[in-house]
Amino acid sequence: MTVAAERRAALGLSLLAKPTYEVAVAVARAGLVETWERRRVAALSAGRVFADPAQLLELGIERGARFVVPGDEEWPAHVDDLNANLDPAPSAEVRRAGRDHGAPFGLWVRGRGSLAEVAVRSVALVGARAATGYGEWVAGELAVGLAEREATVISGGAFGIDAAAHRGALAGAGVTVAVLPGGIDVVYPKAHDQLFERVTSAGLLVAEQPPGTRPRRDGFLTRNRLIAALAGGVVLVEAGLRSGARNTFAHAAALGRARMVVPGPVTSALSAGCHLALRLDPEARVVTRAAEVLEEIGSIGADLADVPQGPSGERDALGADARAVLDAIPGRATWTGGRVAAEIGVPLARVLGLASALVDCGLLEPDGEGFRLTEQARAPTRR
Amino acid sequence: MTVAAERRAALGLSLLAKPTYEVAVAVARAGLVETWERRRVAALSAGRVFADPAQLLELGIERGARFVVPGDEEWPAHVDDLNANLDPAPSAEVRRAGRDHGAPFGLWVRGRGSLAEVAVRSVALVGARAATGYGEWVAGELAVGLAEREATVISGGAFGIDAAAHRGALAGAGVTVAVLPGGIDVVYPKAHDQLFERVTSAGLLVAEQPPGTRPRRDGFLTRNRLIAALAGGVVLVEAGLRSGARNTFAHAAALGRARMVVPGPVTSALSAGCHLALRLDPEARVVTRAAEVLEEIGSIGADLADVPQGPSGERDALGADARAVLDAIPGRATWTGGRVAAEIGVPLARVLGLASALVDCGLLEPDGEGFRLTEQARAPTRR
Repeated sequence: MTVAAERRAALGLSLLAKPTYEVAVAVARAGLVETWERRRVAALSAGRVFADPAQLLELGIERGARFVVPGDEEWPAHVDDLNANLDPAPSAEVRRAGRDHGAPFGLWVRGRGSLAEVAVRSVALVGARAATGYGEWVAGELAVGLAEREATVISGGAFGIDAAAHRGALAGAGVTVAVLPGGIDVVYPKAHDQLFERVTSAGLLVAEQPPGTRPRRDGFLTRNRLIAALAGGVVLVEAGLRSGARNTFAHAAALGRARMVVPGPVTSALSAGCHLALRLDPEARVVTRAAEVLEEIGSIGADLADVPQGPSGERDALGADARAVLDAIPGRATWTGGRVAAEIGVPLARVLGLASALVDCGLLEPDGEGFRLTEQARAPTRR
Repeated sequence: MTVAAERRAALGLSLLAKPTYEVAVAVARAGLVETWERRRVAALSAGRVFADPAQLLELGIERGARFVVPGDEEWPAHVDDLNANLDPAPSAEVRRAGRDHGAPFGLWVRGRGSLAEVAVRSVALVGARAATGYGEWVAGELAVGLAEREATVISGGAFGIDAAAHRGALAGAGVTVAVLPGGIDVVYPKAHDQLFERVTSAGLLVAEQPPGTRPRRDGFLTRNRLIAALAGGVVLVEAGLRSGARNTFAHAAALGRARMVVPGPVTSALSAGCHLALRLDPEARVVTRAAEVLEEIGSIGADLADVPQGPSGERDALGADARAVLDAIPGRATWTGGRVAAEIGVPLARVLGLASALVDCGLLEPDGEGFRLTEQARAPTRR
């Protein structure tokens, strides 16, 4: 069995099966090549017509794309998180939301750079197609800011928020990835052919469906799951109550990815989905600029947003737990989050979240693996 | 010792002392009349000039006001929560924020109705003086909606958000309370004399400072604490990073009152304080309409916002805890929050918060003191 045989089998399976729980189990038991062989024989005897994987591989390569599979250096391993969520008996709701799909068998990729590398530090900006000028402006600003901070901007290549996100990343001389709902060679929407060309020159197009596939409803839903799985976090920029972007947000929640929301006027129907997401998901966080986005996806101690020009009595705005964190850390000492958590009896994850907010308002500063009080927090007269 | 003597003593103390920890302890030990007598003698021997409480009472009554003290039927007893927060050794920060003041010795009240009664079901709408048209519009709409739902709208009588809130409540034929930074007879700002007259005809003016007192910086801060203490919850409608309304919000946090925030465009400096409040206070909740506000301050099982016209796969948007709540409650059973909390090992307060969100999206419905699944949540094909 060669690597080439595995690649052909992965591609063949993508023609005949969805990466559901059942198929993932079959692959785990019998191997990729054997599973493909069985499915191929069954499909042939059922009179099903399908392309030859070897020919399709050549076709894709002709069109400038490559087919990346698990095990390849370019494979973004964190996409395999999708398999951790696979439900053996998915409810109708889970199926309808496209959450019955695990990691793809492989991904078609076209453009510059390694998908694995550019996805390491990445943020998905998602939102409505029929976005407002406000939404497109904010998406563009966030994307420029993320690009300038060397984070990859991932989106779906659609009209509205998606396009503004890709364009902003390009304007910021950054890397952007468009995850397409159809085949890698199918420009959808058609009007974005020039945009997609620019994306491939400064980033990547990615597609799960075989070349030539037109976008269908399930293609959009499974594409949304892929955006959530590829990115370190998802920002909902502008969304109506029934926006598809909220489906991407739900995938991010299921995967445990960071969820962020751009607020907007309560008078705007296109911010109503954003505000509902904030009300329904207690872990979703309000973000207003790129630095705040990176704070959510960055590792602790790095990428903390600069101190906002806040009021002097910043401590006033803090809850009891946040004050407890400040009170726990003595003078000029550096304490780890774990030590603070043990001291005040608050869960570690909560302490780290609070510490991040306290860094945000200039009362704590990261120090190695811990935190210490800033000069501002130590000086009683300046509080 | 008569009730009249106590009332005079309370008024006298309000002329000579702030309701700090030290004074509260003195009153608790020696009684109101004795504490006033000691302060009076000390002030006289220090050559301090101050009004005669009996004369001041008459003056206030002449001007249509009454002086309400603890023990009076009209006294809003929940304002005494302020004493639970008193710090024996307040930091400079606490003093600067006006958080070193406990419950007032008494309150001047002018207008219709009992302060205790109208404050039972009340919401404070606060925000910037130099508000935008957006902020004033939202404040007005929220106030109309609260008035229509028979909730009292409390604010500070200032320009901008405050005035829009009072006017909205009046337009909704509701009750509104303006808590003034100076004396009950001092119209501040001057341009609001007509507004204040309308407030007294449909609600109340309230003041802590003695009649004739001009508003001073500490008057604003202690007024803010009183707004937070009087109300069942505080809504920050529009605020810059340095807005005084954030001080009211901080008082609400210290008192454990519900904190709500109206989001706005991230491009608006006058929503920046709102978004920062959301980022810093994990208990602050986004609100976009009056029903959502009442859900936060209403008792469990009442005042739950009607189901928003959300997407069908609403469960997707829920976090793991919310799904656990849904999964815990069997078929057509009604379970109390306590039983759910015990079953899934999540704190009761969190379960109640989640249950409220689940009612909001039509998956749970209140039933007596508990909750049960809605038809929508029970029907697997409709999930």
